[in-house]
Amino acid sequence: MESPFNDTYFMKRALQEAEMAFEKGEVPVGAVIVCKDQIIARAHNLTEMLNDVTAHAEMQAFTAAADFLGGKYLKDCTLYVTLEPCQMCAGASYWAQIGKIVFGARDDQRGYINLETKLHPKTKIVGGVLEEECGKLLTRFFIEKRNLN
Amino acid sequence: MESPFNDTYFMKRALQEAEMAFEKGEVPVGAVIVCKDQIIARAHNLTEMLNDVTAHAEMQAFTAAADFLGGKYLKDCTLYVTLEPCQMCAGASYWAQIGKIVFGARDDQRGYINLETKLHPKTKIVGGVLEEECGKLLTRFFIEKRNLN
Repeated sequence: MESPFNDTYFMKRALQEAEMAFEKGEVPVGAVIVCKDQIIARAHNLTEMLNDVTAHAEMQAFTAAADFLGGKYLKDCTLYVTLEPCQMCAGASYWAQIGKIVFGARDDQRGYINLETKLHPKTKIVGGVLEEECGKLLTRFFIEKRNLN
Repeated sequence: MESPFNDTYFMKRALQEAEMAFEKGEVPVGAVIVCKDQIIARAHNLTEMLNDVTAHAEMQAFTAAADFLGGKYLKDCTLYVTLEPCQMCAGASYWAQIGKIVFGARDDQRGYINLETKLHPKTKIVGGVLEEECGKLLTRFFIEKRNLN
């Protein structure tokens, strides 16, 4: 029997986090960190609520995962995040030496790929998991925001 | 009379923060954020103590400065930091739209310059302020650490 724990399964959990951000009026990005098929951290963007540009979903998840593990390196962990990480979050992933990053939607403007941020050489990367769902939530957020202003 | 508040003055305050990091066994990097000649945030690297790769001096200073100002943008602020920022911290400075960054020692390996991290287009940059003092503290730290191991 195939394990229910695959990239789609965990990206759905990240998407649930993104929906929580949406409900709070935050740019809807969510993240979970998984170690041995267990979610050890979950977070969503809180930059508005916390008045803090560093409060991206990934940053909070790195902090929470390291706290859970009792060590600052996340070599055996996978980050699932609904949007391609930015320079800051990709830079943090370098320091955390994260084992793998799985992201949903691309971010051509601010994402680490086009900005050529250097990942840790041991970090594997998978893009485009639930890309459409992750992207649609972001699009809906920005359309609603524009209509309110 | 010349104002006592120049880049050297504030870099000395950042260096005091770096010395506090040194005393705690942390990689000695310190930072202060200044707005209208007033220090509104001071921080030093705490990655070991907090078990958290995101706890660089600059990241903590951004969070504290935004908290002080009650808004997440730092357009009228200057970050003084004893070491050239890494990708993560330069990426955070992009989001904060910081007005100016003044750094001490260069970091050819992990600094944002050689890694070509994109700063906010409005961010001014000054490097090499108290470069020797800032660099010497780091060198002393790594020599002592090597001798202990």
